[in-house]
Amino acid sequence: MSADLKVTFTPSGRRGTAVAGSTVLDVARVLGADIDSVCGGRGICGRCQVTVGSAPGTPASETALSPPGPTETNYRGRRPLVAGQRLSCAAQILEDVVIDVPPESQVHRQVVRKRAEVIDIAVDPVVRLHYIEVAEPTLDDDSSDLGRIQDALQEQWGLNGLTADESLIGTLQPALRQGKWQVTVAIHDASVITGIWPGFRDVALGVAYDVGSTTVAAHLCDLATGDVLASAGLMNPQIRFGEDLMSRVSYVMMNPGGEVALTTAVRDAMDELIGSLVAEAEVSREDILEVTVVGNPIMHHLVLGIDPTPLGGAPFALAVDKAVRARASLIDIAVHPGARLYLLPCIAGHVGADAAAAVLSEGPHRGEAVQLLVDVGTNAEIVLGSSGRLLAASSPTGPAFEGAQISSGQRAAPGAIERVRIDAETLEPRFRVIGSELWSDEVGFAKSIEKTGVTGICGSGIIEVVAELYLAGVVSHDGVISGEHPRIVADGRTKSYVLHDGPSSILITQNDVRAIQLAKAALYAGVKLLMGHLAVDAVDEIRLAGAFGSHIDTKYAMVLGLIPDCDLDKVSAAGNAAGTGSMMALLSGAARAEIERVATEIEKIETATEPKFQELFVGAMGIPHATDPFPELAGAVSLPARTEPSGRPERRRRRDRGSTD
Amino acid sequence: MSADLKVTFTPSGRRGTAVAGSTVLDVARVLGADIDSVCGGRGICGRCQVTVGSAPGTPASETALSPPGPTETNYRGRRPLVAGQRLSCAAQILEDVVIDVPPESQVHRQVVRKRAEVIDIAVDPVVRLHYIEVAEPTLDDDSSDLGRIQDALQEQWGLNGLTADESLIGTLQPALRQGKWQVTVAIHDASVITGIWPGFRDVALGVAYDVGSTTVAAHLCDLATGDVLASAGLMNPQIRFGEDLMSRVSYVMMNPGGEVALTTAVRDAMDELIGSLVAEAEVSREDILEVTVVGNPIMHHLVLGIDPTPLGGAPFALAVDKAVRARASLIDIAVHPGARLYLLPCIAGHVGADAAAAVLSEGPHRGEAVQLLVDVGTNAEIVLGSSGRLLAASSPTGPAFEGAQISSGQRAAPGAIERVRIDAETLEPRFRVIGSELWSDEVGFAKSIEKTGVTGICGSGIIEVVAELYLAGVVSHDGVISGEHPRIVADGRTKSYVLHDGPSSILITQNDVRAIQLAKAALYAGVKLLMGHLAVDAVDEIRLAGAFGSHIDTKYAMVLGLIPDCDLDKVSAAGNAAGTGSMMALLSGAARAEIERVATEIEKIETATEPKFQELFVGAMGIPHATDPFPELAGAVSLPARTEPSGRPERRRRRDRGSTD
Repeated sequence: MSADLKVTFTPSGRRGTAVAGSTVLDVARVLGADIDSVCGGRGICGRCQVTVGSAPGTPASETALSPPGPTETNYRGRRPLVAGQRLSCAAQILEDVVIDVPPESQVHRQVVRKRAEVIDIAVDPVVRLHYIEVAEPTLDDDSSDLGRIQDALQEQWGLNGLTADESLIGTLQPALRQGKWQVTVAIHDASVITGIWPGFRDVALGVAYDVGSTTVAAHLCDLATGDVLASAGLMNPQIRFGEDLMSRVSYVMMNPGGEVALTTAVRDAMDELIGSLVAEAEVSREDILEVTVVGNPIMHHLVLGIDPTPLGGAPFALAVDKAVRARASLIDIAVHPGARLYLLPCIAGHVGADAAAAVLSEGPHRGEAVQLLVDVGTNAEIVLGSSGRLLAASSPTGPAFEGAQISSGQRAAPGAIERVRIDAETLEPRFRVIGSELWSDEVGFAKSIEKTGVTGICGSGIIEVVAELYLAGVVSHDGVISGEHPRIVADGRTKSYVLHDGPSSILITQNDVRAIQLAKAALYAGVKLLMGHLAVDAVDEIRLAGAFGSHIDTKYAMVLGLIPDCDLDKVSAAGNAAGTGSMMALLSGAARAEIERVATEIEKIETATEPKFQELFVGAMGIPHATDPFPELAGAVSLPARTEPSGRPERRRRRDRGSTD
Repeated sequence: MSADLKVTFTPSGRRGTAVAGSTVLDVARVLGADIDSVCGGRGICGRCQVTVGSAPGTPASETALSPPGPTETNYRGRRPLVAGQRLSCAAQILEDVVIDVPPESQVHRQVVRKRAEVIDIAVDPVVRLHYIEVAEPTLDDDSSDLGRIQDALQEQWGLNGLTADESLIGTLQPALRQGKWQVTVAIHDASVITGIWPGFRDVALGVAYDVGSTTVAAHLCDLATGDVLASAGLMNPQIRFGEDLMSRVSYVMMNPGGEVALTTAVRDAMDELIGSLVAEAEVSREDILEVTVVGNPIMHHLVLGIDPTPLGGAPFALAVDKAVRARASLIDIAVHPGARLYLLPCIAGHVGADAAAAVLSEGPHRGEAVQLLVDVGTNAEIVLGSSGRLLAASSPTGPAFEGAQISSGQRAAPGAIERVRIDAETLEPRFRVIGSELWSDEVGFAKSIEKTGVTGICGSGIIEVVAELYLAGVVSHDGVISGEHPRIVADGRTKSYVLHDGPSSILITQNDVRAIQLAKAALYAGVKLLMGHLAVDAVDEIRLAGAFGSHIDTKYAMVLGLIPDCDLDKVSAAGNAAGTGSMMALLSGAARAEIERVATEIEKIETATEPKFQELFVGAMGIPHATDPFPELAGAVSLPARTEPSGRPERRRRRDRGSTD
């Protein structure tokens, strides 16, 4: 038995020899196999469960490990011992063996989330808990409580050079005494002790924020497992200072010091969200040890208490751009006193931490395919490239895509028209309204919108209606509304289309079409500018991030020419890519390092100073854009639930009088 | 002129060659000569003034430097250009030259204070100001305000890898814009930007605290020059929770959570002192960038918000002992938001940061002489040794030396008897009272104490009266009061001496003498214990620190046997050594490094577990102590303003009945 035994760990493939009688956990540590533990091998935490695997060609041996002893038979921890699994801190190796470490027993585990989008997040905990047994003070030992804690971490966990956060100074002593010299400490970034609790503890939570101009969202996660325990969202209360970003910046410009009110408003919302999250998950605010924040540059600055006015005009200078590491107390949220705050880097003055988070989530830099990642807000943040090279730019689309600057436009909220179909023959519209599942020509529609009414048209609706009007021949290639029809009404020198005739009728005016043309031309020109810099004619994949990407029908984006030529099945919504990136940074130190490196490597293209941009912009005004027409696309768009339109090319040509605006 | 010129700097002795036309400051930097500058050579700060010196045997050359140009003739900075001095950033070297750098132009200068004690403090600034000209943002420059500040510090000062304190995040941007891209930054410890101001600025202040159980003192210093701009002191308001340290610890023991009230009280006093200091110096709280604190272990813990009760009993475990670096905001004082806090290390559970500061100030570790450094409070903190080896211990003297546990004892305050002389023939006393310059037998004494009265006797008074009673033969070698005299009154089985007979008479009781005997025996035994460990029979120098050391007459300390054999002229008061040490740590990073190193090297001796201590303690109860009698000393004591006593040895022997207590 004194001979060395052969031990192999799967899935890591780590292998080596061990003396008989060694515990599985000890051998794993020596061989570098990844097995989690909070209690340090004391049979308390149940995180180190493993199974005996089988070597190729040999069955799993029943006698390879020592039979369960009192530690395992008496184990009653929070994580039940799964049938067939063993505590690796208790089981001793007696024969050559293959040990299989299931994902939930790995520190660096891969988490597959059950969400609309399935996303893999690799956990690389920024905060780890360590249970320690601290030496009691004696008269002959002149070290301090902190010194003995540091000694225990060194001896029991091999952790050296740790410092204690200043917020902990008053709590070390009572924790040690309440815990009878047994405590659990939280260690941030393998360098600072940020929390201490009496006895054994297995809870370390974090909150990932995505601060948008309209909505502030937050996810409460278990920092060790990556589990999402609760999610919550709130309207950004800054909306009372201005519907869109630029009007909030204007508010500050006109009310010097007004950034304080905006900062307080968003921080209050962030703190309120914590209240919702901990109530839903039935945990405490003090369990939250780590907080991440992403947002566009203006939100990023306001969360940090920085005046955003320099971002309201050229040269759009950021106050800070690198990742910010601070105490969570900096942003006035009530969490654990030692909790840390992390803001992802901003890429440029108009390409913020939200874009960085989207890059982290979508990973264009991780693949060979040329990916176009677009997040449309008041400005479109555009990232283009692949592992070889990444470019980013911001294009001044204005807020038309968000329903602003549109005569009947509004934010996406109950009552807003979000889907539109127009019969190409009759020119009669059908639409759907947020808050109802029914189309306007379906039975029960009127009743279904009784509460909300039809209040306006939101971004996705305006894109669809303009595209449908174009497909129906009402709007020409160069954007002119024309035709003789009861729904086409004169409005001074121009014409409007009556989308909804009711107590408050909704018209699509010539100016509305112009606003959409300007916005889509800006977006398209920005994309083409980056494509020019990258020297590619086409992109392999298009990901549309954020609310815009989730709500618009990508086919209409193609019809209008918002985005360049690409296989339709390679165009998809990225969902809340920024929020996902925030969560990745919350759960993984490696993800933080990755995005900090990538953010500095991304080449920033400033659209405002590129002469080529103006040229592309003017050329992209047409529908579809004149510089890259793909008229055949219109026919490829499948419009369900109505007759396939015919004769449109002819009609379009007939109505197209060649006028330019 | 293209040949290299020989340049020598004094007093550093740095020398080398320089191309004609180089500025003196540039050459100094290259050669490593220490010349101060805040403005970075822009002729604004006036800190870099130098004179042309003369090489041995050659007179100073008038033409060695370029004649004053517009920078110097137009210079109107806060530090006037001294006649005969030149701005080294403007003056160009034209010939071989010796440049003399006066102390006030050196970064690492030696400061000689004008105080009761003259102490050299070498300034090695922990915070330095740097004026920079920051690049304006442009559309083609994608860096942030912080990035451009970091670039300027790198380019203009050669400072790399600096981070910005989180409290600065919101202020970078307005400072840059108000200062038209010219700002001054404060850099702490050559690593963190902790302050930023628009334009040029030359003020960086700090506060050194000495938190005593009775008094909280604070000094406001210029961090660059070392000048003390203001000093202030306050009663420690914790006194309302208990007169002495142990009664405050008892308060917390009996009122769980009571440490919060004690912490708040002392922090309030510290904040109030800042108010006094900035008012006196006519500066702003925001000018204060650095704060240091020293105090005994209980004050150290209470300032940090740590429950001191574990320090109230064995094993006297400190929560933290190493130097504490934190934000000044941790202790709730209103100073600059980026200000840093530094607490000197504690040496052991009863040998605090005050003792460490006294070591830093007195420097026993810097010399060959064996120094005994004693600071007497509720416990006597004793440090003994030299550069070779340093030992420290705390001896449980109790509060008798502070006037507590004495029947008529009181704190040193107006009305307290502080000096006593007793005529050896008549046994009539004379005394002086705090608040009056007159002796009690001088004309006008009664009037001079009209306001205060005679309220009690303080620590120095009780030591003198016991020593005088011994010298007069009223108190025997073993501490018994005896004799027949109107002033010697019976008090049950023991006798008392009537020191003052008035509305409230002041008696020295047998118990009072016993209390002093116990206290002095504890002190002496502690000292002897350390001497035994160090294996020395005598000490070369004795320094008595703190209020005790300043107020007692060292001769009486020798008469009573508080301290061991030593040349009387080598026994002296160290004054406020702890406060001086606090100031040294405020002004010098090198001093911080020094005391942190020394504190770990000091050997701690625990009196409570040393069997030898009890033996020494019992042996030291006699007056003078039996184990090391020096009866000839009594005759060496010069007692001014009265007849030299005679016949005392005889009388002492006569009254000494050999009884032990």
